[in-house]
Amino acid sequence: MKDIALNIPTYDDMLAAHARIAPHIHRTPVLTSSFLNELTGAQLFFKCENFQKAGAFKVRGASNAVFGLTDAEAARGVCTHSSGNHALSLSYAAGRRGIPCNVVMPRTAPQAKKDAVRGYGGIITECEPSTSSRETVFAEVQAATGGDFVHPYNDPRVIAGQGTCSREFMEQTDGLDMVLAPIGGGGMISGTCLTLSTLAPEVEVIAAEPEQADDAYRSFKAGHIIADDAPETVADGLKVPLKDLTWHFVSTHVSDILTASEEEIIEAMKLIWKRMKIVMEPSSAVPLATILKNRDRFAGKRVGLIITGGNVDLDRLPWTQGA
Amino acid sequence: MKDIALNIPTYDDMLAAHARIAPHIHRTPVLTSSFLNELTGAQLFFKCENFQKAGAFKVRGASNAVFGLTDAEAARGVCTHSSGNHALSLSYAAGRRGIPCNVVMPRTAPQAKKDAVRGYGGIITECEPSTSSRETVFAEVQAATGGDFVHPYNDPRVIAGQGTCSREFMEQTDGLDMVLAPIGGGGMISGTCLTLSTLAPEVEVIAAEPEQADDAYRSFKAGHIIADDAPETVADGLKVPLKDLTWHFVSTHVSDILTASEEEIIEAMKLIWKRMKIVMEPSSAVPLATILKNRDRFAGKRVGLIITGGNVDLDRLPWTQGA
Repeated sequence: MKDIALNIPTYDDMLAAHARIAPHIHRTPVLTSSFLNELTGAQLFFKCENFQKAGAFKVRGASNAVFGLTDAEAARGVCTHSSGNHALSLSYAAGRRGIPCNVVMPRTAPQAKKDAVRGYGGIITECEPSTSSRETVFAEVQAATGGDFVHPYNDPRVIAGQGTCSREFMEQTDGLDMVLAPIGGGGMISGTCLTLSTLAPEVEVIAAEPEQADDAYRSFKAGHIIADDAPETVADGLKVPLKDLTWHFVSTHVSDILTASEEEIIEAMKLIWKRMKIVMEPSSAVPLATILKNRDRFAGKRVGLIITGGNVDLDRLPWTQGA
Repeated sequence: MKDIALNIPTYDDMLAAHARIAPHIHRTPVLTSSFLNELTGAQLFFKCENFQKAGAFKVRGASNAVFGLTDAEAARGVCTHSSGNHALSLSYAAGRRGIPCNVVMPRTAPQAKKDAVRGYGGIITECEPSTSSRETVFAEVQAATGGDFVHPYNDPRVIAGQGTCSREFMEQTDGLDMVLAPIGGGGMISGTCLTLSTLAPEVEVIAAEPEQADDAYRSFKAGHIIADDAPETVADGLKVPLKDLTWHFVSTHVSDILTASEEEIIEAMKLIWKRMKIVMEPSSAVPLATILKNRDRFAGKRVGLIITGGNVDLDRLPWTQGA
């Protein structure tokens, strides 16, 4: 039953999302590594959303929002503000449907990200790198276009879309004891909770967060949302705070939040690149980093890790910075 | 029928090799990229030996040699000289069989490579970085241990082992017009010719080589082996010359050899990392580099590319050097 006040997505919304987006996304592979199994004493399964369309899981939620619009709604296009994977993903999905996608991005965003958004057909309006400028500019863009606002994570359509990842994950593995995913705004973790609480309620959902952007960890302990102003972390996808919808899932379904230092995140990232031969973002390394520092908790368990994305600037890898 | 003089491996040797090594290797996946298909106008299939055990296709040939030994032969172990993937692969295979593996490596070889060989249980004897020192030291090691010498590529067991890769490749794709692989000593190309000349003789085999180490290209044009002294290229797996066994396959079965510049190789490597999200070596990028500069030749074709390995020094990527 939906909570009308919050418009919380249901398991059926997730199933509908999966049917809707299947033609537009990859069913990404699950990889394993005997080296990392030995190192951790656990049996690890990596759901590789770095191989996803547009390079990240975000395309699931974005596609669900875009392809769920009526033709009349779709004609006005979609819009959002994001300097990251959501901007890419929404542009990709809108391009597939052939509708306009307006993205407000700070003028200081990396040129590579802007190029990628334009490569997918997104229309960029630049703002100053401040919350007030972003909000003003975004209001103008939305008013001018009438486009549907697709929030990067605090949107039931987006959460239902992200939940499709865990459904595939369960189909691709022979049972898991727990699933770990990184947490920023909480869209992926919320989708994971949404799906697993019905499909496999015995599976623990654990969120992994950078110590330097541990607002979800502190919110979890305090029992209410704590939002930081401008956290700094190498895991640049995880700087945003929880919002009411994602807090609902975190506070009711997540069994724990573990944190890792910047050094631990970079070490885990390099380990995955080196041993698994895959390119993934710093954010995606946080779950393995928390396993490596809490070995006893995971030893002997079947542990799923969601590799959330692979859009990294190859010219600026964390371990070559300043080298 | 075997050519006794040269001891040329046969298709049946390849089939026997595949049965022998199957428990010890991965059946590596074949990946595709809609972006690279659009960019090249061809339909590309990437056989990802970067995901192979020990990080490279070399483990196929090394495992075939190691597991083909009688118990009496195996008791004396194996030995080789190599500072690259063959050293890793032979150490891995010997470790799986529980027999000693002695490797002669130049003392100037990267510490990471030495650590990796030791990690698989290989025993390293260092030599000076010269051919004469390597030969002297290797003769001493072989005499002292009585171990079976497994040459990195000029060995029928090794070539038969490498041929198993193309057999899987054909099973995993719905027919190919051509297969491209990088060429250094010619082990992978020879195995590819061995397998495809019987299994799918309609498939063209094309070798891809760095311009700066184009001895195979010049040998192919001249009709006899030309060996360079010490070529320098970022594709460090491809510096070694052809030998009699590999020349046999190159001169009789390869339809062409294409070359690419250092810049083109690095660009192709970065493109694969960025768009396919996989970690692979510079050597593995040479086939795509040659396709990008010869688009007309490949447009509309179904083209297989062998990604030969993924053992790259993450601290010294070609595009971050001197940055």
